[in-house]
Amino acid sequence: MGGNKIVVYKEPGVVTVEDHDPPKLEVPTDVAKAKGLTQKAVHGVILRNIATNICGSDQHMVRGRTTAPPGQTLGHEIMGEVVEKGEDVQFLDIGDICSVPFNIACGRCRNCKEGQTGVCLNVNPARAGSAYGYVDMGGWEGGQAQYVMVPFADFNLLKIPSREQALEKVLDLTMLSDIFPTGYHGAYTAGVTTGSTVYVAGAGPVGLAAAYSSMLLGAAVVIVGDRNADRLAQARSFGCETVDITQDASLEDQIAEILGVPEVDSAVDAVGFEASAAGRDGHEAPATVLNSIMTVTRAGGKLGIPGLYVTGDPGAADEDAKTGTLKVRLGLGWAKSHSFTTGQCPVMKYNRQLMMAILHDRAHIADAVNATVIPLDDAPRGYQEFDQGAARKYVLDPNGLIPAA
Amino acid sequence: MGGNKIVVYKEPGVVTVEDHDPPKLEVPTDVAKAKGLTQKAVHGVILRNIATNICGSDQHMVRGRTTAPPGQTLGHEIMGEVVEKGEDVQFLDIGDICSVPFNIACGRCRNCKEGQTGVCLNVNPARAGSAYGYVDMGGWEGGQAQYVMVPFADFNLLKIPSREQALEKVLDLTMLSDIFPTGYHGAYTAGVTTGSTVYVAGAGPVGLAAAYSSMLLGAAVVIVGDRNADRLAQARSFGCETVDITQDASLEDQIAEILGVPEVDSAVDAVGFEASAAGRDGHEAPATVLNSIMTVTRAGGKLGIPGLYVTGDPGAADEDAKTGTLKVRLGLGWAKSHSFTTGQCPVMKYNRQLMMAILHDRAHIADAVNATVIPLDDAPRGYQEFDQGAARKYVLDPNGLIPAA
Amino acid sequence: MGGNKIVVYKEPGVVTVEDHDPPKLEVPTDVAKAKGLTQKAVHGVILRNIATNICGSDQHMVRGRTTAPPGQTLGHEIMGEVVEKGEDVQFLDIGDICSVPFNIACGRCRNCKEGQTGVCLNVNPARAGSAYGYVDMGGWEGGQAQYVMVPFADFNLLKIPSREQALEKVLDLTMLSDIFPTGYHGAYTAGVTTGSTVYVAGAGPVGLAAAYSSMLLGAAVVIVGDRNADRLAQARSFGCETVDITQDASLEDQIAEILGVPEVDSAVDAVGFEASAAGRDGHEAPATVLNSIMTVTRAGGKLGIPGLYVTGDPGAADEDAKTGTLKVRLGLGWAKSHSFTTGQCPVMKYNRQLMMAILHDRAHIADAVNATVIPLDDAPRGYQEFDQGAARKYVLDPNGLIPAA
Amino acid sequence: MGGNKIVVYKEPGVVTVEDHDPPKLEVPTDVAKAKGLTQKAVHGVILRNIATNICGSDQHMVRGRTTAPPGQTLGHEIMGEVVEKGEDVQFLDIGDICSVPFNIACGRCRNCKEGQTGVCLNVNPARAGSAYGYVDMGGWEGGQAQYVMVPFADFNLLKIPSREQALEKVLDLTMLSDIFPTGYHGAYTAGVTTGSTVYVAGAGPVGLAAAYSSMLLGAAVVIVGDRNADRLAQARSFGCETVDITQDASLEDQIAEILGVPEVDSAVDAVGFEASAAGRDGHEAPATVLNSIMTVTRAGGKLGIPGLYVTGDPGAADEDAKTGTLKVRLGLGWAKSHSFTTGQCPVMKYNRQLMMAILHDRAHIADAVNATVIPLDDAPRGYQEFDQGAARKYVLDPNGLIPAA
Repeated sequence: MGGNKIVVYKEPGVVTVEDHDPPKLEVPTDVAKAKGLTQKAVHGVILRNIATNICGSDQHMVRGRTTAPPGQTLGHEIMGEVVEKGEDVQFLDIGDICSVPFNIACGRCRNCKEGQTGVCLNVNPARAGSAYGYVDMGGWEGGQAQYVMVPFADFNLLKIPSREQALEKVLDLTMLSDIFPTGYHGAYTAGVTTGSTVYVAGAGPVGLAAAYSSMLLGAAVVIVGDRNADRLAQARSFGCETVDITQDASLEDQIAEILGVPEVDSAVDAVGFEASAAGRDGHEAPATVLNSIMTVTRAGGKLGIPGLYVTGDPGAADEDAKTGTLKVRLGLGWAKSHSFTTGQCPVMKYNRQLMMAILHDRAHIADAVNATVIPLDDAPRGYQEFDQGAARKYVLDPNGLIPAA
Repeated sequence: MGGNKIVVYKEPGVVTVEDHDPPKLEVPTDVAKAKGLTQKAVHGVILRNIATNICGSDQHMVRGRTTAPPGQTLGHEIMGEVVEKGEDVQFLDIGDICSVPFNIACGRCRNCKEGQTGVCLNVNPARAGSAYGYVDMGGWEGGQAQYVMVPFADFNLLKIPSREQALEKVLDLTMLSDIFPTGYHGAYTAGVTTGSTVYVAGAGPVGLAAAYSSMLLGAAVVIVGDRNADRLAQARSFGCETVDITQDASLEDQIAEILGVPEVDSAVDAVGFEASAAGRDGHEAPATVLNSIMTVTRAGGKLGIPGLYVTGDPGAADEDAKTGTLKVRLGLGWAKSHSFTTGQCPVMKYNRQLMMAILHDRAHIADAVNATVIPLDDAPRGYQEFDQGAARKYVLDPNGLIPAA
Repeated sequence: MGGNKIVVYKEPGVVTVEDHDPPKLEVPTDVAKAKGLTQKAVHGVILRNIATNICGSDQHMVRGRTTAPPGQTLGHEIMGEVVEKGEDVQFLDIGDICSVPFNIACGRCRNCKEGQTGVCLNVNPARAGSAYGYVDMGGWEGGQAQYVMVPFADFNLLKIPSREQALEKVLDLTMLSDIFPTGYHGAYTAGVTTGSTVYVAGAGPVGLAAAYSSMLLGAAVVIVGDRNADRLAQARSFGCETVDITQDASLEDQIAEILGVPEVDSAVDAVGFEASAAGRDGHEAPATVLNSIMTVTRAGGKLGIPGLYVTGDPGAADEDAKTGTLKVRLGLGWAKSHSFTTGQCPVMKYNRQLMMAILHDRAHIADAVNATVIPLDDAPRGYQEFDQGAARKYVLDPNGLIPAA
Repeated sequence: MGGNKIVVYKEPGVVTVEDHDPPKLEVPTDVAKAKGLTQKAVHGVILRNIATNICGSDQHMVRGRTTAPPGQTLGHEIMGEVVEKGEDVQFLDIGDICSVPFNIACGRCRNCKEGQTGVCLNVNPARAGSAYGYVDMGGWEGGQAQYVMVPFADFNLLKIPSREQALEKVLDLTMLSDIFPTGYHGAYTAGVTTGSTVYVAGAGPVGLAAAYSSMLLGAAVVIVGDRNADRLAQARSFGCETVDITQDASLEDQIAEILGVPEVDSAVDAVGFEASAAGRDGHEAPATVLNSIMTVTRAGGKLGIPGLYVTGDPGAADEDAKTGTLKVRLGLGWAKSHSFTTGQCPVMKYNRQLMMAILHDRAHIADAVNATVIPLDDAPRGYQEFDQGAARKYVLDPNGLIPAA
């Protein structure tokens, strides 16, 4: 390790790649103080990153829709190789290639013991739950970098059993850190199972992953809605039906056109708070997706809500939305006995089994989300194209370790 | 059977007891036409009612907060004796005393087969789910009456095994038609289990039943909040802690005072859309309860929402609320990975087991909710006192069959 | 309807096709008396059968391994068209094509309300649970016939939405009455999910259906074991790995050869009590399959046991086995914290969703089990070939209604 | 720490208290070698034990019914105070009083992450799962001692929030290490819930804990069976019904006498492999309890089997039983669609919530099992009396820290 090239947020719309000191086996000072941890991370490892992806939730920061300060390092979708380990790392060796769940978790608190690693109680002074390279998450360094420190490594890391397979299937396996489990969580918590009819709102990478996961879960029909024609084409590439929400026809009518009935068994909100209203103009309407999926989900159905909703949105259109208060058609959901699952996906609940599906050629998530490799130095371009709606999932190659296709 | 005395809604604030024709083994014409049923209900029974209770959701109609027309018959909490049965009633006999789940269900549709009897697909032309004596539910006659017709009786009715016990414990058993299962459903879907700390918003009969059910489920501490001192006293009578939401201290602070921490494991919204803001004035604020229970529920916790939210509220304070659109702090719930269960309780999922607890002296729900017997003719007084906040659950005695205490 | 040609068990090894009176809307006298039902089945329908399959559990009777008397009518895998209906059949019409779950269920008892239709309390004087055309099941007429009476039809029958699709996909849809749900139940209760490694013991139709269902559930690797080479080839036809249990290598070693480790996540016993010991000779050893799947299932894993175990087996090799008492390695299972699910599959829990998967071209179960149509009159040949190990699932065509392929 | 007085198995029927060297922060050599752990346990703590109980499963060793060698240290039910901690113990402090789950678990393997801490993959060379002071478990030192080393302490230990409460309620809290969760697990996996009827086989401490837990879970009626009159009296002391299995009347008849029907909803086997046949003589019959609970459990019911079954029993009556192969009435269980849960209780799944119930005075388990404090030096007497059937749970007081009652 010499230095550590890393992606940094500078101001709304601008990210750069900077050269920082390499990470140490240390937890952020704020976390250590607030939570009583030793600063020295004897439980941690340093990874040399092999692949690290740009996520839609990074875009919220880069668009200025959060309170992220200039200088915030970025990146929480990480796969890498162990190059250094602390004294209490018992079950990982130097050279192991691992996937990193985006949720940082201690493995020792009540929530972690219950499998709720998305709301670990010991890693973030501000609230339950944390992530690498994210605002209000305790200051853990971002992973869109050459190196990253992962704490509680025995607990957090998923080891890929074979180095050869790890490199051969790196574009699929890199999706295990966030979007594949997140999409799967959306579908799973929406009750998708064999024979289900499903509506997925949003054809960005998480929406595509939710649609692909619905297929894996055995859905009979998966319908994806978006306003971006390229992303809808991507959804059709693996067998989904699609609806274009800019059309005049209502969502119910478009679904009825496909299924014969205007409702589905299960629905997933893969959009979150930066939602746009249906129709051609598409002004921002933060509760519109949630309300529309209630409309089209059958009475007694479940809604999975992996799309991000925030407690603070300085760029919101109205005062209520600035604090995450949205106009929800609660009466409708109640009349239909809907149940709702929200929050960060607890990646560890799903990543091992999804890895098995990848390794045994049962899941091809990289194709589904159109994984596109670019050098770390091109991260600014990746952010920009992704923000403009490219139907791609950008994978950064920080150390030139991703084999050519 | 001569006539059939029955409680009828006349205008906001006014109910009367009228004498109607006795019920026949027939389904409402609208339901039969829309759903393809035979008008003749060979699957139905006529009950002579033994006990039938006034429910908080009846009050929504009587207060003019729904579109119920004058002449709407009332009552969906019913326990009675079979006096006539159709040809396809195979497993009930004349003289059997039964509890009637308030949800009318066919037992033959997909939702009923899944146990989701609160959203049966075959008994209401307007939507999924139905009830006796309720607006927009297909026109089934109310049960605050001497007699009532119960369709699909083998499926719907819960037979009390012994006539002696049925009469001896009638005040407990009459709660099986709605509030005991509804409260239990709230607690159960909020994840209450052995050792839980629980907050129940609302100390009306459903709130008290949710609190009592939390105890049955093994909760370590149950805290009930309300603005009505008598109702809070009622909650304390069976071991709950209470918070008075008219106090200056915030709900979090009051909870912290009791538990040492400002949060609970599980919370139940037993209030619904006619909620009042905390504080002394208590103006109507329909999402306030839901938002406050998100505030006090731990990250990773679950929220049970048996309190009624409606799709149409002509008396609402603002335009959004008139269609059931409320300002929900979704960002907060999402940040805490909350999950939410809404809708009518599917009574059949719980009533048999709660009956067993009553019959074996493990549950004394009548005392918990302060069951108070009045004659059917006094129903107007019962409605009025209940509306004024009496800490009582009014049980009507339509045929003089309830034994003196 | 003139007469009713029907398959009848005559003596060990012999079945014939006889001409009986057509069925009436009546329940068997013994059931009516013992359970208090009206003899007239106003809740029932008469079906003209379109497809009805020979099942491995029929073979137990025909081999003389049960107490079935000569004259026992056979057949519990049925799909047909409604030609007559009782007065309380509300939601089915003449001409509807339906699949019949093999478990007869009332839809009105505690077990049915809980979804446990395999152990209905109201349809069999001898015990909980019943089936058409089976010994000790209350005397319901068999369905390997031109016509059959189905009681509680609104509850029991699964309507195929479109007549065209029903006929076009009849060979897949006919598997919904038993083996597809039964195999799925085995896999589901064994905990099979995305990424699982699975061992299925037995490559008869139920084993193949369990293997195919494991695929639908997202398994990473499905390994099927049997001693019949043709049946193993059938398993490989849809992507399974196979092990030949007549080989010298142990099951653990053969699994390790495939997976790199000698154990799987989940295992299914699709053989039951007529199991043969591994190895070339293969003498009968009734607990051998159960014991071997404990050996190869990981600690903490689950075992699904859809294979039939009986309480009376007059042909068993030893006295204990004659009453269903087998030598089980309970110590091993306990040491590995295994859990076990036994019993008849409650078909209704799964058939709707599996139908959806078939109708939307996501499941091709007929190919997986090698569905083979023969005329009803050829049933004796079908029984014989199946008993000799043909890698086929025989579908009888009692009314010449199955379209040519 | 000077020396460490500890209970040691010498030969069948004989235990002594010896003085050993105090424990160090080191894992057993065999475990370290086989599993790749560092010998130094930076993740571990040393506890000064406050209470440590004699368990029925210790008796199996002391009776010579296992392969435990002379010199085997004993004790896996431990509660103590942290007196030394390794560098990676982040969330515990010197002086914290903690309960120790009897299952040793790493908190970092697949099974631990799934909550299956009873079958941890990293702490026992011989198989999945381990415990302190037990044969074939990797050589972890026993806890019937003044001091004990607990590895992976942040994960394993349950901290009692207040030192005062810890000492005041020590006799209840010491049951959290094993029998209270184990009994609860038995009841929970048997499906016990509000209103259940339950049969618990065995009135030793685990049986009493299962019965008490059934009460906590809301059971309507709990029936406990044993041949020991004192233990049955103990069960009646907290509201159970009892059956004496030495009586001539069958178990079914005795249950019918109590419930009116000869079956229960749920049953728990709290006896295990050293079971005795019903009736006066009571010869050993290792599967008799399991078979009898199948007989009395309703079709569709569940069986919880916390009673220990082993893979090697040198003292067994027949060859099969010596390897844990027992004659199980599998046909009966299958006919009733029973499901079975076996194995070590994963204590961590339940201990926090049971602690909450104790701390808030909702559970009084010490009284239920008749906790009886004796000095560590009197352990031999405790073993002897317990073996002779004393209706007591012996709690050793190794450091004189248990307050007088």
